[in-house]
Amino acid sequence: MTVSVFTPTSSDKTEGSKKSSFPLNRWYVAGYSWELKGLPLGRTLLNHAIVFFRSATGEVAALEDRCCHRALPLSNGTLENGAVRCGYHGLLFNEAGKCIEIPGQDKIPTRAKVAAYPVEERDQIIWIWFGDAEHPAPTGPAPAYDIHSSGKYLYDGSVYHYNAPYQMIHDNLLDLSHLGYVHLKTIGGNAKIHMNAETKVESDDSSVRVVRYMYDSEPPATYTAAYPFKGNIDRWQEIEFHVSHLLIWTGAVDVGTESVTDPDRGGFHMRGFHGITPETETSCHYFWTMATNPVHEPEATKEKVIEQTMLTFDEDKAIIEAQYANMQKFGDRPMVDIHVDVAPNRARRIIEQLL
Amino acid sequence: MTVSVFTPTSSDKTEGSKKSSFPLNRWYVAGYSWELKGLPLGRTLLNHAIVFFRSATGEVAALEDRCCHRALPLSNGTLENGAVRCGYHGLLFNEAGKCIEIPGQDKIPTRAKVAAYPVEERDQIIWIWFGDAEHPAPTGPAPAYDIHSSGKYLYDGSVYHYNAPYQMIHDNLLDLSHLGYVHLKTIGGNAKIHMNAETKVESDDSSVRVVRYMYDSEPPATYTAAYPFKGNIDRWQEIEFHVSHLLIWTGAVDVGTESVTDPDRGGFHMRGFHGITPETETSCHYFWTMATNPVHEPEATKEKVIEQTMLTFDEDKAIIEAQYANMQKFGDRPMVDIHVDVAPNRARRIIEQLL
Amino acid sequence: MTVSVFTPTSSDKTEGSKKSSFPLNRWYVAGYSWELKGLPLGRTLLNHAIVFFRSATGEVAALEDRCCHRALPLSNGTLENGAVRCGYHGLLFNEAGKCIEIPGQDKIPTRAKVAAYPVEERDQIIWIWFGDAEHPAPTGPAPAYDIHSSGKYLYDGSVYHYNAPYQMIHDNLLDLSHLGYVHLKTIGGNAKIHMNAETKVESDDSSVRVVRYMYDSEPPATYTAAYPFKGNIDRWQEIEFHVSHLLIWTGAVDVGTESVTDPDRGGFHMRGFHGITPETETSCHYFWTMATNPVHEPEATKEKVIEQTMLTFDEDKAIIEAQYANMQKFGDRPMVDIHVDVAPNRARRIIEQLL
Repeated sequence: MTVSVFTPTSSDKTEGSKKSSFPLNRWYVAGYSWELKGLPLGRTLLNHAIVFFRSATGEVAALEDRCCHRALPLSNGTLENGAVRCGYHGLLFNEAGKCIEIPGQDKIPTRAKVAAYPVEERDQIIWIWFGDAEHPAPTGPAPAYDIHSSGKYLYDGSVYHYNAPYQMIHDNLLDLSHLGYVHLKTIGGNAKIHMNAETKVESDDSSVRVVRYMYDSEPPATYTAAYPFKGNIDRWQEIEFHVSHLLIWTGAVDVGTESVTDPDRGGFHMRGFHGITPETETSCHYFWTMATNPVHEPEATKEKVIEQTMLTFDEDKAIIEAQYANMQKFGDRPMVDIHVDVAPNRARRIIEQLL
Repeated sequence: MTVSVFTPTSSDKTEGSKKSSFPLNRWYVAGYSWELKGLPLGRTLLNHAIVFFRSATGEVAALEDRCCHRALPLSNGTLENGAVRCGYHGLLFNEAGKCIEIPGQDKIPTRAKVAAYPVEERDQIIWIWFGDAEHPAPTGPAPAYDIHSSGKYLYDGSVYHYNAPYQMIHDNLLDLSHLGYVHLKTIGGNAKIHMNAETKVESDDSSVRVVRYMYDSEPPATYTAAYPFKGNIDRWQEIEFHVSHLLIWTGAVDVGTESVTDPDRGGFHMRGFHGITPETETSCHYFWTMATNPVHEPEATKEKVIEQTMLTFDEDKAIIEAQYANMQKFGDRPMVDIHVDVAPNRARRIIEQLL
Repeated sequence: MTVSVFTPTSSDKTEGSKKSSFPLNRWYVAGYSWELKGLPLGRTLLNHAIVFFRSATGEVAALEDRCCHRALPLSNGTLENGAVRCGYHGLLFNEAGKCIEIPGQDKIPTRAKVAAYPVEERDQIIWIWFGDAEHPAPTGPAPAYDIHSSGKYLYDGSVYHYNAPYQMIHDNLLDLSHLGYVHLKTIGGNAKIHMNAETKVESDDSSVRVVRYMYDSEPPATYTAAYPFKGNIDRWQEIEFHVSHLLIWTGAVDVGTESVTDPDRGGFHMRGFHGITPETETSCHYFWTMATNPVHEPEATKEKVIEQTMLTFDEDKAIIEAQYANMQKFGDRPMVDIHVDVAPNRARRIIEQLL
């Protein structure tokens, strides 16, 4: 676990006194382990432009993405033995953000440094801590996600950029009733069955849990493509919302063959990890992986599931960005709630409480 | 004739108390009959985002293009027996804007509705009424345009989007002296003859009429391509400005063969319909059709005339958008009027009076 | 030499009373002689949109790029016997900005004119004068640049548009220490030698002069491509900053063969002219020519030097625009100066004094 010392600059301090637009004192997803290869990676998270790279020990470092000399993004530079070198005049920064070389100059001013952020790499996910003045350092470890590590699943993933506020993706994922309208070509299935399925919603002050079971329904395209179902199926959808990410476990068994509410159920499984990290107030990163249980031809099945998932998420992105553009066009107008909004509204209340 | 009841939402009422940027209480062009096929059509007119579709009886409906649930444009949805279904959670709206189905929910809240606008379809043109608080419903029928219906002409048309305020297109169409500079490749002809032609301008409080006759001039490219003129021609240009649209009747006969001021004149005719509908204060839709009298090979002649008209209007669009971009760059600077501005200035005064 | 009378419009007078963002009362580069061919040339300089063309006598004219009638850029028009004709209604303007023809109208109002700016064409460079209320007319001739005229050099050049404030290009050119990081593929060479080279900086109230000599270093790619060096080289870099342009004379001789500080030194020469003219506060034009002394195959060598120079300047543009975008993202944050900033900082102080 890498926990760097967070070094706020004077201007960060000023920012700290402003109310944050996002819940702080928690881990947010910043990227995947496989993204850190030979070059520094630049990404803006919660309005902070950050450069990521591996230090000499292989641990992930996260620095303010701005050379303290003339403001070039350090992510435009190069890596050298676990330090990042600016691409303009060659200043070299270590994983703590300290300038350790100014080419052609012996003395390095103490002011020559950039902020470092606490990061943790766990189960192939890179997490970053954004804390307030009271909790600049993490108060606990980053979330585990052993689906990526247990060997029981095959998975892959990607990161989508959204021109929409991050909570609109929460809304979307906490209400899978949209599957019958938005995702008819992939994971949809019969709209009426989706809409009429009994939905149980539970929540506490930092999470929401939604479960739905749909019995004796026709398998949707993605399911048929991935698994040899004999006919109709019994489906489950279990959604767990946390402030920075959601876990969604869906799947199905042949109709009437076993209990879909039993966690040890067989059949076809899709386990989604969904890290939703604000970029700015009006844009976000959507980090997702999709894992599937190996059936016959595991690698080919996984490829098929990932392909279908990308189609599905493309459909969501089109809808959500159109929705947000229309909200900007119409301005602040009342919205009429319907039955499917119970879970999304609880998630919104949790975030409202935190702010 | 479809005259829906206009149902302003609370925020529309607020907007209603603001002074409109555009003359209200009149019909504006919203589209063509042939645009309403299998999918809902979204278009923003006078700052109102609107979705158009055909109801079960085949009449045109115009609703606020925003689902009352989560604001997705209804134009992203689908049509079902003359009602429009939202593409996110499947809410279904009838032609009056009333939500008639919420999938998975028995009770439909009375608040579940969107605004409906009065529309009328006449002579292949779809008109929409924008009224103020005093005249929410139309005070009369939409304008007729029997050139589209009489069978005496062949025509076609299109809609151009302009990044320029709508009145700049009025200016352009009311002053055809620009033909000799902008449209040399199509309908231009000799610039000096255009500029020196005697122009008669008449107006009242809601219309302007401009007539010009140009004798013994060389036929321009479009004319030669469409009609077997023997040599020089006598040309007419008759322009009628109304606040929401212009009618322009131009044409020519072989020089000296008959009176060009006689409405029953023969020769080659081009009858243009020009619906100019603001999209926002700084952009507009330009709906145009061009009709020509059938000579030899009527269909081929019409194709040629439409092709030439599109080239001509492309030239206008390039000029007007460059003009507007420059006005924004230079800001509010005095303009020097010249002789050709008489008619455009009268049209501007009419609109100023109406606001 | 063309010195037109500057005719400020009423709105220019208003602007004149505001403090300019740029040093006035001096010549700025507006273009090259070879850019003025058959069509008028539009270019915005120091926030003034200007059209350039050759008058009947072949001298360069510079007018406000806005027809006084309906604001179309005159650069959208055509040239006719040394006058520019508007592309909308055909108004014709002479080199003094006076309207000399309104087609179809006998009387030309005295107000029908556009501002004219003093320009001077010298050594293939077109200069324009921007003066304040006290010095509307030039107080002296435009700078000479006989490298273009003496016949001792072959040269070529271009103009780059930058989405960055003009002073960021000054910073870049006054500190060639970045060559070892930014320009490794072209004119770079060994970064450490660049950074450690002794640098002498001299300045007065309107210029800065930087000289650096780097002995016994490996020739960079561009040098090897252009000149038959035998092995290591002794290099010189001499930079002269003036408020509107910089002159940079670099080159090298075979190591130890002659004094690189002697102005009559032989070897390989690159003489750069760099006219940096603000377009707006946040963008600029970078006019550059690169001249080289003819060695063997002079034309081919020049082509090679120009090609390498374009690659080099592409690299600079990428860095500087990324730097400026990051400055906008991070806002006004302190910068840490290092040893290489002496000359750039002096140039910034000169401009600060002038404003």
